[in-house]
Amino acid sequence: MSKVAVLGAGSWGTALAMVLCDNGHDVRLWTHNKEQKHVMEVERKNQKYLPDIALPASLAIYNDLSQAIKEVEAIVMVVPTKAIRELCLKLNDVLTNKVVIIHGSKGIEPNSHYRISEMIKEELDPVFYDNVVALSGPSHAEEVSVKHPTTVTAASEDEQSAVYTQDLFINPYFRVYTSQDIIGVELGGALKNIIALGAGISDGLGYGDNAKAALITRGLTEISRMATKKGANPLTFIGLSGVGDLIVTCTSVHSRNWRAGNMLGKGLPLQEVLDNMGMTVEGIRTTEAVYQLAQEEKIEMPITTGIHDVIYERRTPKEVVDALMTRTKTTEVDDISS
Amino acid sequence: MSKVAVLGAGSWGTALAMVLCDNGHDVRLWTHNKEQKHVMEVERKNQKYLPDIALPASLAIYNDLSQAIKEVEAIVMVVPTKAIRELCLKLNDVLTNKVVIIHGSKGIEPNSHYRISEMIKEELDPVFYDNVVALSGPSHAEEVSVKHPTTVTAASEDEQSAVYTQDLFINPYFRVYTSQDIIGVELGGALKNIIALGAGISDGLGYGDNAKAALITRGLTEISRMATKKGANPLTFIGLSGVGDLIVTCTSVHSRNWRAGNMLGKGLPLQEVLDNMGMTVEGIRTTEAVYQLAQEEKIEMPITTGIHDVIYERRTPKEVVDALMTRTKTTEVDDISS
Repeated sequence: MSKVAVLGAGSWGTALAMVLCDNGHDVRLWTHNKEQKHVMEVERKNQKYLPDIALPASLAIYNDLSQAIKEVEAIVMVVPTKAIRELCLKLNDVLTNKVVIIHGSKGIEPNSHYRISEMIKEELDPVFYDNVVALSGPSHAEEVSVKHPTTVTAASEDEQSAVYTQDLFINPYFRVYTSQDIIGVELGGALKNIIALGAGISDGLGYGDNAKAALITRGLTEISRMATKKGANPLTFIGLSGVGDLIVTCTSVHSRNWRAGNMLGKGLPLQEVLDNMGMTVEGIRTTEAVYQLAQEEKIEMPITTGIHDVIYERRTPKEVVDALMTRTKTTEVDDISS
Repeated sequence: MSKVAVLGAGSWGTALAMVLCDNGHDVRLWTHNKEQKHVMEVERKNQKYLPDIALPASLAIYNDLSQAIKEVEAIVMVVPTKAIRELCLKLNDVLTNKVVIIHGSKGIEPNSHYRISEMIKEELDPVFYDNVVALSGPSHAEEVSVKHPTTVTAASEDEQSAVYTQDLFINPYFRVYTSQDIIGVELGGALKNIIALGAGISDGLGYGDNAKAALITRGLTEISRMATKKGANPLTFIGLSGVGDLIVTCTSVHSRNWRAGNMLGKGLPLQEVLDNMGMTVEGIRTTEAVYQLAQEEKIEMPITTGIHDVIYERRTPKEVVDALMTRTKTTEVDDISS
């Protein structure tokens, strides 16, 4: 049995805390929101993010960070990309012992173009940890919370930390694979949200499964191309945090990025879409970050560019799709490997 | 303008003939069924396979094979795998000039384990053709027939034949890529039907998107492993005839293989499923062929084996899924590349 703190009580943080409880660990779920902490304790539910799911009796809920992380051996960070740096700074003030740092967030920071683990390494005092592990894969929190079969990857440059995370989470409904390609796993998890926006746009335009499959496939080609250039193993992209996560995010009603894209495809302006969502849509910021990166490094990313233009340049979705379909004739595999 | 015969008037053959008509070619659609030919001519529809879609006025319909293929420069074969050999033998009797052979069928022959182009090469008299082209990708006929954006790959060992096929079919709603990896493209198109059966089984059991994404991803891993061993380029599997076709077949209500799997997952016995379908379910025969091949060549294919056991050994779907989830802990990428 391990003592573990899960930081961030959105749907995914809560679902991961529930898996850890099921595995018999001593689990502390922290939320920055005092009101949410109170309601969760009284109702024993996380009504906003996982409606109607009963929290395990053993799950302790905290609003005080120093109490939540007291004497834990591992910390699982599950907050939006934009809250990562601030959380690390707070941890520097309250940590007293070394921990394993695991994160379940998916995004790229605009301007710096940092992955989550790079942001953590820049902010968190190195006396408190040796390695960072990214936990990622095709995993809707709603399904994990009802114990439907799910598979994810625990990735770290340090094999031992990945195996530690695998042992912490694995059980008969939550299968964990290990990987040492944290670059590929983090980029796969982040970049797939761009393609999910595109899939939503295609569906919003009223196009069918053929168009969506084309977009997902050619989208996978370009995110693999970008990630390989950043040092990822291309094989990671035919795995759970590549294809797997892409499929779930692009074809599921649960996906926020798909829903946001769907509204864009139907012609709603960006601000109205964001107002309607009310939750973080990581793909919007990630599109901006990756578009910048593609420009700087001169990497051909026609789908990302098209989605960027719909979001930020007000090009119409139909115009962008038509332009993608009538590009120069090309060979498939040469194009993938170039 | 080219003179082209499309042989086989199911949904896909009819949709491909319609694309060729749109591109201004002289197109002849042949059906082996005299009654179907008559009804299609009178109604100018293919009511059984593409309900309510009007056939182009320029499309000529034949039941006489020698008339249909007279003076054509290309033949597009779109018949079930089990009808390929017989069709080739008939063509040997009626062909008088050399043609380009294109096929749009997806399957593997049990016992011989031949791909479609291998069957064609074994039966068709070599005086009548130089090369075979496989046309494959994520493409529901229903969507092509209403001109929704669609992308496919034309694959041939001979680059010129692939480019010829690309030029024949490409238009603003039907984008064609070329490839020289006909092994990968044909195996991708065939083997994906096994995984679609599995996705249907998972949905039939009431599992969610996470489970289905896991199955698709790990399924892609094992079909890539098999295909690479048979000489395919692994990169083909992150392309349209790999991932692309897999996504469409596993997530769409149009897919016969998914529907057949769904009934199996709900507990219906095989014979009842086949009776309910009334159309060819290529995945059932392909599962048998690939299971045999995996046994002979000692290739690890746990998902294919599980689906085989559900179909042919009457193991329960739940038992098979539970066994897949609780296999030995493993590393993701090593497993993919091994």
